[in-house]
Amino acid sequence: MPVPSPPTRPALRARYEARRKEVVDTAARLFAEKGYAATSMAELTEATGLAAGGLYHYIEGKEDLLIAICDELLDPLLDRAGEIVAAEAPAADHLRALLRAWLEHIETHRHHMLVFSQERRLIEGDPRWRRVRRRRRSFERILEDVLARGEAEGALAFPDRPLALLALLGMVNYTTQWMRPRGRLSAAEIADGYCDLLLGGEGP
Amino acid sequence: MPVPSPPTRPALRARYEARRKEVVDTAARLFAEKGYAATSMAELTEATGLAAGGLYHYIEGKEDLLIAICDELLDPLLDRAGEIVAAEAPAADHLRALLRAWLEHIETHRHHMLVFSQERRLIEGDPRWRRVRRRRRSFERILEDVLARGEAEGALAFPDRPLALLALLGMVNYTTQWMRPRGRLSAAEIADGYCDLLLGGEGP
Repeated sequence: MPVPSPPTRPALRARYEARRKEVVDTAARLFAEKGYAATSMAELTEATGLAAGGLYHYIEGKEDLLIAICDELLDPLLDRAGEIVAAEAPAADHLRALLRAWLEHIETHRHHMLVFSQERRLIEGDPRWRRVRRRRRSFERILEDVLARGEAEGALAFPDRPLALLALLGMVNYTTQWMRPRGRLSAAEIADGYCDLLLGGEGP
Repeated sequence: MPVPSPPTRPALRARYEARRKEVVDTAARLFAEKGYAATSMAELTEATGLAAGGLYHYIEGKEDLLIAICDELLDPLLDRAGEIVAAEAPAADHLRALLRAWLEHIETHRHHMLVFSQERRLIEGDPRWRRVRRRRRSFERILEDVLARGEAEGALAFPDRPLALLALLGMVNYTTQWMRPRGRLSAAEIADGYCDLLLGGEGP
């Protein structure tokens, strides 16, 4: 199967990219609902409304889709996180802004997140996933730096900072399991709640 | 396939139960490593060292194994949690003891936990899993009560207690992804760290 090559003319290129994103989002929904292993290329083709073989215009294969799902999950978030910490501000403000961006991203990428956590075994075990793991590690390092700066500035204090980071990753990732579009709390309210928890909030 | 009926004589019964537990633990490891859908009954039979068909002496089918894995995960933990909160003590002590028991249980049931989180889609969507969901809900209610009592006693304070409970569930469940037998922190140290985080610990 040849590697798909997107068109070069800008208007066609934009349409191609938009269509490819639709394909990836549809795959995220199907993988989240049925599991990656149980979803066939035929089902994917049907769900995207493309003709038989049309899928290969956008992706090389099923695994390529899984990588694209991880990229859509990590790349925009990592870009946004970089912007946030590039602006001059106290670490506590950075932490709040990062949490809001992160939770809002999760809210609009619920299927992507479910795929990421359900197929973790696949993603972590395989050398082809090195780039995904590196991007995730970069995001974690941004959080780590903010927590460390928060301690240096006296806004945060953790008996064990690496453990606090793992606690934060756990609470945010788990949100995928229960956050709903019209739930009791918005993504921003959840982010603020987690931030207050780390800041010691209204603690005794 | 007839429902397996364990022997009635105590010595035989104990041996049967021990052997059944081995079968369930082996299934937990295989499901965790390969995924539930991708694991065949033939592979399970081979991994348990039983003769063809021998597996059906202990379980009715693959799904029965998945339920047994969830039971092994939830039942002992729920029993232990009940004992902890039955003893007279401040809520903060109950919280610490619950977290220790929970993290220690996770440490010895890592494969069971991975199966539970990987197959969540299956477990949550199917009415046959009602008992598993009810047991999990009971455990969450015990935690909820302890957090509420902690607030009433002035040891804990949360701007949003239901969110604090979800944060706690998230940080503890995520531990499965990174806790290792000879890691930097023991299960008890992780439990204490999480407890301090909720208590406001050495916060500013």
